[in-house]
Amino acid sequence: MTDFSPSRAHALELDAQDPLASFRDQFIIADPDLIYLDGNSLGRLPKAAAERARQIVEEEWGHDLIRGWNKGWWDAPRRVGDKIGQLIGAAAGQVIVCDTVSVNLYKLTMAALRLQSAKKRIVTDEFNFPSDLYILQGAVQTLFPSPLPPSPYGRGDGGEGHHILRIGSLDDGITPNLAALEAAINEDTALVTLSHVLFKSGYLYDMRRITDLAHRKGALVLWDLSHSVGALPIALDDCNADLAIGCTYKYLNGGPGAPAFLYINKQLQEKLTSPIWGWWGQKNPFDFDLDYEPAPGVNRFLVGTQPMLSLLTMEAALEPTLKAGMDAIRAKSILLTDYASFLTETWLAPFGFSLGSPPDPAMRGSHISIRHPEGYRIARALIEEMNVIPDFRAPDNLRLGFAPLYTSFTEVWEGFNRIKRVMEEKRYEKYPRQKLAVT
Amino acid sequence: MTDFSPSRAHALELDAQDPLASFRDQFIIADPDLIYLDGNSLGRLPKAAAERARQIVEEEWGHDLIRGWNKGWWDAPRRVGDKIGQLIGAAAGQVIVCDTVSVNLYKLTMAALRLQSAKKRIVTDEFNFPSDLYILQGAVQTLFPSPLPPSPYGRGDGGEGHHILRIGSLDDGITPNLAALEAAINEDTALVTLSHVLFKSGYLYDMRRITDLAHRKGALVLWDLSHSVGALPIALDDCNADLAIGCTYKYLNGGPGAPAFLYINKQLQEKLTSPIWGWWGQKNPFDFDLDYEPAPGVNRFLVGTQPMLSLLTMEAALEPTLKAGMDAIRAKSILLTDYASFLTETWLAPFGFSLGSPPDPAMRGSHISIRHPEGYRIARALIEEMNVIPDFRAPDNLRLGFAPLYTSFTEVWEGFNRIKRVMEEKRYEKYPRQKLAVT
Repeated sequence: MTDFSPSRAHALELDAQDPLASFRDQFIIADPDLIYLDGNSLGRLPKAAAERARQIVEEEWGHDLIRGWNKGWWDAPRRVGDKIGQLIGAAAGQVIVCDTVSVNLYKLTMAALRLQSAKKRIVTDEFNFPSDLYILQGAVQTLFPSPLPPSPYGRGDGGEGHHILRIGSLDDGITPNLAALEAAINEDTALVTLSHVLFKSGYLYDMRRITDLAHRKGALVLWDLSHSVGALPIALDDCNADLAIGCTYKYLNGGPGAPAFLYINKQLQEKLTSPIWGWWGQKNPFDFDLDYEPAPGVNRFLVGTQPMLSLLTMEAALEPTLKAGMDAIRAKSILLTDYASFLTETWLAPFGFSLGSPPDPAMRGSHISIRHPEGYRIARALIEEMNVIPDFRAPDNLRLGFAPLYTSFTEVWEGFNRIKRVMEEKRYEKYPRQKLAVT
Repeated sequence: MTDFSPSRAHALELDAQDPLASFRDQFIIADPDLIYLDGNSLGRLPKAAAERARQIVEEEWGHDLIRGWNKGWWDAPRRVGDKIGQLIGAAAGQVIVCDTVSVNLYKLTMAALRLQSAKKRIVTDEFNFPSDLYILQGAVQTLFPSPLPPSPYGRGDGGEGHHILRIGSLDDGITPNLAALEAAINEDTALVTLSHVLFKSGYLYDMRRITDLAHRKGALVLWDLSHSVGALPIALDDCNADLAIGCTYKYLNGGPGAPAFLYINKQLQEKLTSPIWGWWGQKNPFDFDLDYEPAPGVNRFLVGTQPMLSLLTMEAALEPTLKAGMDAIRAKSILLTDYASFLTETWLAPFGFSLGSPPDPAMRGSHISIRHPEGYRIARALIEEMNVIPDFRAPDNLRLGFAPLYTSFTEVWEGFNRIKRVMEEKRYEKYPRQKLAVT
């Protein structure tokens, strides 16, 4: 870890030395007092995206009308997919932008289970996005309905012995139990699917190691890149990954609910069939044939007409990321999370905070969790009184995201300073405890 | 039919008498010379939508950032669904806006087949959107994979006797063979699914009659409203329809690829399970439970995070339609299609054109097809030389859509005048014949 000092002067010095400092100007900073530490949930608005949104609506929709489909709309899922491919180590022709993360996970899981029909196990972990676990459960129940009454819901143990195995963590609650994971991946495993960076602790899986391990047992691997894409370099092709999905509105700054992406390794594309036979995935969509025939390549996983305002705005939003490059982004990300870890230790540990993320930056993404039993009320106080936006993940994680393109070191310094004030002044005590059930 | 005259003065008189004439001012008309007869494919840009798009991007995303989810984003699928419900005769709580038409058709078809698991037939027709047929084929193959080699693709005859029956037309090529349809719906029919208005001929099904017939045999009915919503009054609840889907970027003017909607009759909601278990359809999505439990009601068919720029812009685009009301829109729509039929008969029949739509306006939607063996080349000439945008559907349909909120009678007059000129001057002859395979 760099030698940090808790002085504001040191934060200013870090900003002065930051090669990405100028990128902050490429984003709309509507409220300069706001400390926004939630870019891992919804990225800030790039100026290029705001301008592009206006153009799509007024010039393209307003003027071109239906002709827009031949002027860059129809090709957008593949064109934008290839741009994202540059950020995740995927050669052209393997990434498409479409639908939502969940729908894409469904399509790929169903296709993988069909291809691996002799195998009955899906391996994942308890730290995966719950939304991903639901999709897996639904896929298993769709293909292998559980014979057990009364409810088809739950962990997703399906009929005929099909089941989903969720690996737990080590005692620290931060690190997945890799020994258990390795033992769980056996010859009966159809699919291993994990979040590349865990949404709660920020733990970063070793993609190459897990992929190799799965391949040795004949399992396919599907990576959810939602919390890593745009935050760190990813090498899908180089790791020989099979499948991946990811979100574009977190570190890629694509805007609320911007369409997701999926990746299918070239070697697998002709072997997989989507369960959802869409006309965008038809071999000759404008022949209006009455019978489906899948398009060659990854396009067969397209389904219906995509939301162009959201999709094309997101395309423009990629510009700063593509320009900065993932290596520079990763270098600053590590410095930011190291600095935040230092301020946690220096200022917040005396108030009962502990780091809920791996201390080694090589083992984490671009957010950290800081844990405190009163985390929920502290988050409330920060949002309502201090103009700081973190987020909270039960039971005790105050999650802080650092977006290297626009998060400055002085913003981090000021954010932690305000957290310290909340603790010193016990501002959180006036808020009720969380009402939600804690799992 | 009203007594029409082919004079331009008569067109001006029809505009002067049009109670909806002022609504044209609520849309961006970027090129006043353009004759836009493709509003049934992509509606024009409402001024309210352009303004709202700017606001969503700059004020909500730019300023509110993640806080936008609590300020109207999260609730949007249900809120906007209820607004569309007002246009299709659906009481609140039965319509949600999400995903694409195709993904929604997949979810509902899979759910219907599961509920009707003892029945093996799906009934549809050859005039349904090919995209809808593909989805049906994929759903059957997902649940009942065909045992027949070599290809899983094609008409969708699945394993265990599951099959899709497609009804043909009468000799006119315009009207579905209703006798054959009625005979096909038997006790073994799980689902009847049809386009309410056929995309090619504009034929309008009698929703009540088909729904009643299907119910008598124990079949569920799913209506694709893509070409009828916003063009004519629909009475889903009153007809006791089971399921429906529809598009928002045609007559609803929602913008390219704006999210679609689905309807589930209240009486069915608790009996149906989506195959795609999404976190937006989870009972308590913010509890982050690891096991899925479906939300009560129609919400269980939500999946993932929706594209808010597209969705909220579409919400604003509904304003003119909601304000005009479906009865006034339908009255003008009939007058427009009658007028177009009259001009076809008067001006174009001598050049070999014939009407490819039902002559009785009660039997059609808001577009008509005019048929000519050189239809494809005529469409090319209109687009490239005459600043007229129709669309073309093989083999010989020049399809003309009339959007009552912004299509004026003088625009129709001018459009037909230009088609007449293309024929008089044989301008189409310089274009090559269609290269696409014709089905």
